[in-house]
Amino acid sequence: MTPADPALLSLNTATVKSQWTLAQAIEGCARHGLRGIAPWRDKLAELGLKKAVSLIRSHDLSVTGLCRGGFFTAKDWLEDNRRAIEEAHALEADCLVLVVGGLPEGSKDLLRARERVQECISKILPEARAAGVPLAIEPLHPMQAADRACVNTLEQALDLCDALGEDGRSARCALGVAVDVYHVWWDPKLEQQIKRAGKRVLAYHICDWLAPTRDLAYDRGMMGDGIIELAKIRNWVEGAGYAGFHEVEIFSERDWWQRDPDEVLRICRERHLLT
Amino acid sequence: MTPADPALLSLNTATVKSQWTLAQAIEGCARHGLRGIAPWRDKLAELGLKKAVSLIRSHDLSVTGLCRGGFFTAKDWLEDNRRAIEEAHALEADCLVLVVGGLPEGSKDLLRARERVQECISKILPEARAAGVPLAIEPLHPMQAADRACVNTLEQALDLCDALGEDGRSARCALGVAVDVYHVWWDPKLEQQIKRAGKRVLAYHICDWLAPTRDLAYDRGMMGDGIIELAKIRNWVEGAGYAGFHEVEIFSERDWWQRDPDEVLRICRERHLLT
Repeated sequence: MTPADPALLSLNTATVKSQWTLAQAIEGCARHGLRGIAPWRDKLAELGLKKAVSLIRSHDLSVTGLCRGGFFTAKDWLEDNRRAIEEAHALEADCLVLVVGGLPEGSKDLLRARERVQECISKILPEARAAGVPLAIEPLHPMQAADRACVNTLEQALDLCDALGEDGRSARCALGVAVDVYHVWWDPKLEQQIKRAGKRVLAYHICDWLAPTRDLAYDRGMMGDGIIELAKIRNWVEGAGYAGFHEVEIFSERDWWQRDPDEVLRICRERHLLT
Repeated sequence: MTPADPALLSLNTATVKSQWTLAQAIEGCARHGLRGIAPWRDKLAELGLKKAVSLIRSHDLSVTGLCRGGFFTAKDWLEDNRRAIEEAHALEADCLVLVVGGLPEGSKDLLRARERVQECISKILPEARAAGVPLAIEPLHPMQAADRACVNTLEQALDLCDALGEDGRSARCALGVAVDVYHVWWDPKLEQQIKRAGKRVLAYHICDWLAPTRDLAYDRGMMGDGIIELAKIRNWVEGAGYAGFHEVEIFSERDWWQRDPDEVLRICRERHLLT
């Protein structure tokens, strides 16, 4: 197995969500020698798109993804996804991450929710393609199927890509997947589906699964503190052709969101070497 | 869709775990007109096997499953599973449910843990077959992969059955699966894999998935209080050839384990009609 390239570490701003504004996170990345950043749109709105673009460029950071588009259960989903595509374009983001949404309010019809995801992506895909913004469907852990995303395995996400005409053989992939170890580590078909994904892996997110995990959304661990075989999964992803960043995304209400963000970034750098 | 047959309701004793002994649960089932019961082995040990067999027979209840064998990560797994097979035999249980165990202490090697499950089942299968006790592998929700079971989808469980020589075509199935809606409702391949399972469905467990769910193990809902399409899944299972009981299994620290158990059984009966 090859070791992780330290130059490929990226910070998903959710990791320091409660501590830093986007401007602080950009400057923090630069200070700690990180070359990539993935902003969330609420933080982006606070700073303003123009200022964000300018600050990110002045520090020469890559935007490894914009979080997030999707949520096709929302009333204003189409407008919101259009705005997200524009923002991702302005940021020259490697992709717009799609968290597709769970069951619509009051509905139990999971099959219909999934059909709708395909319909909605087919609607925004031409606009994303025209803007040069690849869309990355992020399968979320099955424990979040009802409330956050009804796409729950890599296989399902790739079936969606296939159905929407993206088989991964074109030179530039307009629709692919975001592989977040937290969501997919348990999957018996993970290695097989990463191989199948090939160039359609558009983003790679890391953190760890704590045992025990105390919350269905906000108890993620720092790399090395849990039970995910991070080096193995990264080697699968890179073996499939992915050469992009490794984006740290840790939602952690009780631990990492309470710490000094400079300490968080320092530990991210150390632990990344072990992944 | 056909409606649920009220005669097929069974009580998994975990549903009234904090309120009733096994003797009380047996009498409670008889009092409320339930014809099936699935005991847990700790309660069985408290009452004593002989007394349990006698009490269950005197009330003419079917034992729809014994919970549980498996946990192949335990040091005494072989002896413990042998004892479980003997108990299931004495109870004339429809199956012994296997919760296979997660990662061994200190290990992150999920692939190896899964290989070991297959090795261990292959070791106990001849003894179970000789005792006339069908083994039901229960895939557990992926959120429990690290700590309770590294078999996490119906597809994976059926692959295991195939690998161990049980393709479901024999007259009496010695190795199959327990389908618990809580664990599998989210699975994009659920309908397909239930069809594939056919006669290998040895047990069918019901409850509901609450949205939001506040705990990774002990926050299950009563049928109708969550978002699972229970009637649809039951029709898939019965369409595949399953004609057995519908076993209510609700782990609920904050709600159902705090209620009057007679109220719990009364509500189970009412809600079962809607599933």
